[in-house]
Amino acid sequence: MLNDGQPLESVSLKNVTIDSGFWGERQTTNRDRTIPAIYHQMKITGRLDAWKLDWQPGQPKPHIFWDSDFGKWVEAVGYSLATHPDPELEAQADAVIDLIEKAQQPDGYLNIFFTAVEPQHKWKNLRDWHELYDAGHLIEGAIAYYQGTGKRKLLDVLCRYVDYIDTLFGPNEGQKRGYCGHPEIELALVKLYRVTGEQRYLNLSKYFVDERGQAPHYFDIETIERGDDPRNFWAKTYRYCQAHVPIREQTSAVGHSVRAAYLYSGVADIVAETGDPVLRDVSRALWDDLTQHQMYITGGLGPAHANEGFTFPYDMPNETAYAETCAAIALVFWAQRMFNIDPDSKYIDVMERALYNGFVSGVSFEGSHFFYANPLASYPNVNPFERWSGIVVENRHYQRSEWFDCACCPPNLARLIASIGSYFYSTTADTLYVHLYNQNHAEFQLGGTAVSLEQQTHYPWDGNIRFKVGVNHPAWFNLALRIPGWCHNFRLEVNGQAVEANPVRGYANLAREWANGDEVVLSLDMPVERVAPHPEIRQDAGCIALQRGPVIYCLEEVDNGKHLANIAIPRTAQLTAQFDPDLFNGIAVIEGDAVRIEPSRWPGGLYQPQSQLDYEPTPFSFRAIPYCFWANREPGEMLVWVRER
Amino acid sequence: MLNDGQPLESVSLKNVTIDSGFWGERQTTNRDRTIPAIYHQMKITGRLDAWKLDWQPGQPKPHIFWDSDFGKWVEAVGYSLATHPDPELEAQADAVIDLIEKAQQPDGYLNIFFTAVEPQHKWKNLRDWHELYDAGHLIEGAIAYYQGTGKRKLLDVLCRYVDYIDTLFGPNEGQKRGYCGHPEIELALVKLYRVTGEQRYLNLSKYFVDERGQAPHYFDIETIERGDDPRNFWAKTYRYCQAHVPIREQTSAVGHSVRAAYLYSGVADIVAETGDPVLRDVSRALWDDLTQHQMYITGGLGPAHANEGFTFPYDMPNETAYAETCAAIALVFWAQRMFNIDPDSKYIDVMERALYNGFVSGVSFEGSHFFYANPLASYPNVNPFERWSGIVVENRHYQRSEWFDCACCPPNLARLIASIGSYFYSTTADTLYVHLYNQNHAEFQLGGTAVSLEQQTHYPWDGNIRFKVGVNHPAWFNLALRIPGWCHNFRLEVNGQAVEANPVRGYANLAREWANGDEVVLSLDMPVERVAPHPEIRQDAGCIALQRGPVIYCLEEVDNGKHLANIAIPRTAQLTAQFDPDLFNGIAVIEGDAVRIEPSRWPGGLYQPQSQLDYEPTPFSFRAIPYCFWANREPGEMLVWVRER
Repeated sequence: MLNDGQPLESVSLKNVTIDSGFWGERQTTNRDRTIPAIYHQMKITGRLDAWKLDWQPGQPKPHIFWDSDFGKWVEAVGYSLATHPDPELEAQADAVIDLIEKAQQPDGYLNIFFTAVEPQHKWKNLRDWHELYDAGHLIEGAIAYYQGTGKRKLLDVLCRYVDYIDTLFGPNEGQKRGYCGHPEIELALVKLYRVTGEQRYLNLSKYFVDERGQAPHYFDIETIERGDDPRNFWAKTYRYCQAHVPIREQTSAVGHSVRAAYLYSGVADIVAETGDPVLRDVSRALWDDLTQHQMYITGGLGPAHANEGFTFPYDMPNETAYAETCAAIALVFWAQRMFNIDPDSKYIDVMERALYNGFVSGVSFEGSHFFYANPLASYPNVNPFERWSGIVVENRHYQRSEWFDCACCPPNLARLIASIGSYFYSTTADTLYVHLYNQNHAEFQLGGTAVSLEQQTHYPWDGNIRFKVGVNHPAWFNLALRIPGWCHNFRLEVNGQAVEANPVRGYANLAREWANGDEVVLSLDMPVERVAPHPEIRQDAGCIALQRGPVIYCLEEVDNGKHLANIAIPRTAQLTAQFDPDLFNGIAVIEGDAVRIEPSRWPGGLYQPQSQLDYEPTPFSFRAIPYCFWANREPGEMLVWVRER
Repeated sequence: MLNDGQPLESVSLKNVTIDSGFWGERQTTNRDRTIPAIYHQMKITGRLDAWKLDWQPGQPKPHIFWDSDFGKWVEAVGYSLATHPDPELEAQADAVIDLIEKAQQPDGYLNIFFTAVEPQHKWKNLRDWHELYDAGHLIEGAIAYYQGTGKRKLLDVLCRYVDYIDTLFGPNEGQKRGYCGHPEIELALVKLYRVTGEQRYLNLSKYFVDERGQAPHYFDIETIERGDDPRNFWAKTYRYCQAHVPIREQTSAVGHSVRAAYLYSGVADIVAETGDPVLRDVSRALWDDLTQHQMYITGGLGPAHANEGFTFPYDMPNETAYAETCAAIALVFWAQRMFNIDPDSKYIDVMERALYNGFVSGVSFEGSHFFYANPLASYPNVNPFERWSGIVVENRHYQRSEWFDCACCPPNLARLIASIGSYFYSTTADTLYVHLYNQNHAEFQLGGTAVSLEQQTHYPWDGNIRFKVGVNHPAWFNLALRIPGWCHNFRLEVNGQAVEANPVRGYANLAREWANGDEVVLSLDMPVERVAPHPEIRQDAGCIALQRGPVIYCLEEVDNGKHLANIAIPRTAQLTAQFDPDLFNGIAVIEGDAVRIEPSRWPGGLYQPQSQLDYEPTPFSFRAIPYCFWANREPGEMLVWVRER
């Protein structure tokens, strides 16, 4: 039934109403706290007024990626306004958009830093200076704002800018054969093509994707033109920006992980538009490499701070994991696009893993503090940004920050939460794919038939989902319900009758004539699972992670005391999930028996022969909470991978 | 019996003849390979010819610590010549010493870089530029060369230099209140005082020790004089160089670990000379902090690369351990000095731990390759110098190098091996302390009586040591035999008769009248021990290290295959020591049963719920070798802390 050649469409978030449940709560916080907090930070750091282009020598310099911060924020605003109108928020955005319109140069150029601060360096260093990246985020923001409000001003500005870019870059005589060191514009251009129908935008995206890594290497050429030596590249290798070889020759995920997953998303978009078989195979190979060798259990990507990215297969340091919030977001983008070119729930499994874990961990429960790096273990004095600074600050714990100089993560997070509804469903002419489960009401057009679907569920805290179908008159279509990869047993009922449905590529297909009011109940068994790591992940050897449904759990000091590394869970310990209505508005926690070595009973010294020790570990009951909610109570240690005994 | 107030003397290496056994083999290799290899490297890198002071702009610049490389090498040469004359080697040293004599400036100043390259920067940055450190190593070299050969030329040069330094630095009007950012000259000056009897040298050492960290801070003052801001100090804190507070207020080991242990050694020397009670207490507190909270099981110090030093208590990363070879050496120096001011075998226990493990690991078995950092686990692509460079080199293993730009470790190692005989014994008027066990013959004067002692043993491969006493006529003295901290049962026989001797502060005292030919047999039980880590060492939780006698063992890929982290030793596994006569000239290896998860049996994916896995770990027999000999066969993984199951 799946991938029968019909074009797949993700369902617009306008058609998906999420008022409650896990994602409803996140969206409320996003609207009430996160989007305003980011606006406030952009305001006080000068990011908004910088569009006046009135920077003067001696003042703090705008950063080269300030444009992108606003681009992602206004994208979040557009998504939010699409479902939750807010005149005050809209006025805030409009005021900045007015500045941006005035900031556009006569030729269409649009960039704060390279107009107001260093115009002499415009387009001089595509490798490092993010100009096309900035453009890409502004394009995405402009599209979302247009779709959410109907206002085209920013979209028109960006189209003029892209028209200008399109004259500058390309394979023709007199054009620069350049592309951005930080991919992003590639996927933005496909979006812009879809909104405007302008084929040139798709062509430009294809050009950027295919030119990348070609010889002679553009980054070499522009470096020499700047009077520098390409060997001085600080990151040492173009693997850092996935420009070491052309994309069609790439087989493994390398370098800066956000750049990687943005690029791969753009590639998948091009496959969706063109059906390019080579790029489809490349996409699959890169996906397999990344998800089979280089992905944290949280969906985090990129273990290393040095390159903000990938290192080598099975390298998963926990305390020092970089696992940038933006990388988990980029993985979600890519996963959705991979499904669109290769419909299989394995992509959505990864998307769901990132969404519920390494993505949501990026924002505090109250909504105004952010993680840039998302380590899988935390210990006083250990900061994933710097293994050791030379300064001991006793009991310094890693915590979320209100803002960052390089503030990519907060608005990125806001735009994904605001648009989460668009990840729930896909349709073809006769199939309604349900990817994610959460309370919501959604409206669809299936081959001309209006269909609505209501989900009632406490997912991810339990595995029961009740669907109510709405049709004006009975209609035949396939309701394809995703059976998550984490689920080993499920039951389906239609109108109270058990039905059998062997999942095909991860979807249970209920192809039938549906009447108004038909009810489907999907029951996904959701036991507590002890998850074992691949035997080559040396950092997790001997440990298990606790997972229930899509949610990865962690131990925190506030629940379990200090010295978490000392805890071991016996192989035979009973582990139970409990719903705690008082914690984080109600979540499932995992409890069970464990043992620990009490430091107070240690006889002294750093090392003791076991032959001279005479004590056994002390039993105690542990409590684990969802990883995504860690560091929201008292500062303290945290651990995902717990020793098994 | 111990510490009865009589002055303690370490026995000169001239009186200790070591021809075979563990240290005899190391000394042979040191003479035959290491000392020549260092000479060769110094020669080809320009370190020797640099003393001609003919550097010209455009040529590669000498480094600011080249002087110290020669200082340590000529010290090694002096020690080696003391027991093994070698005219060719002596001629090599003499030739350079002639250059050095000519390089000395009329005022006594002596430094390659600040005479030939940047004379304008002389004494301008004591914090960073190592001038007094260079002087210290040259002093030590001059003393050893004088003692080994009777030649005073270099010693006289250095005395003139120190006389000049003594006019420049001090508390008097017109003097700089400076001291070196890298401590070393403090201990060298005490040595020089002992050799020359010149009280001023001791006073200068005391001055340097006590001035350190005083307010106003000299490093602030000189930085401002250079037109810089002290807040720009790259290391961020004077803890880096143990100058954050005066030494009398220091309670924990901080900063660069070699600097720390050199400073503390100098402090202990001053206590030995002056009996200063505050400095004695400070020394004990620092010792306890370091050995109870911040020492690897190998005797390695300093987990972090960033500051080449200490981080915080119980922080013992294994793969990325810095544990510089020089730091283990400095710990040996300090331990010997601590014994001299506080006679207790606990200091020798630490000295022995460093000597047999984290020190000897610094040189290859064949003698001409060196480790700077000594990690306790090694994995392809992980280099303790840089967690991640951005460049993936598949299967790149950490290995010893022929040389380093900053080549402190190789000659440091050579001088300690060459002088190892001076760590074996101490004497008072009536007590002969035996600290270390190895085949050797030694001569002593105890209160005017000539005494000789012969050790016959295969230590550290077994725990039996046979002593033969030589005296011209029967003489009463106390033969104090160290019972190592690792030994939980021992037996003593004198002339075939069992004797009881409860160790006092770690020494079994045989105080009696000794006749010529008397024989003592000490039998130290030496089982394989499973050593447990302190419960707060999170990196080793759930693991054990294997130790036998003073030797820490490790697993290597060449013996045990890949994926060592996957190996677990069952709690009940029998572990046996076997003597392997073919490995490294004959060593004891440890063998036993273990289990591992075979990656080939893993069903796929990065993470799998245990509920879906159906295989048990595979049993196999492991083999562990002494840590100090790792990385001498095939490149591969290495692991000290092994999981227990």
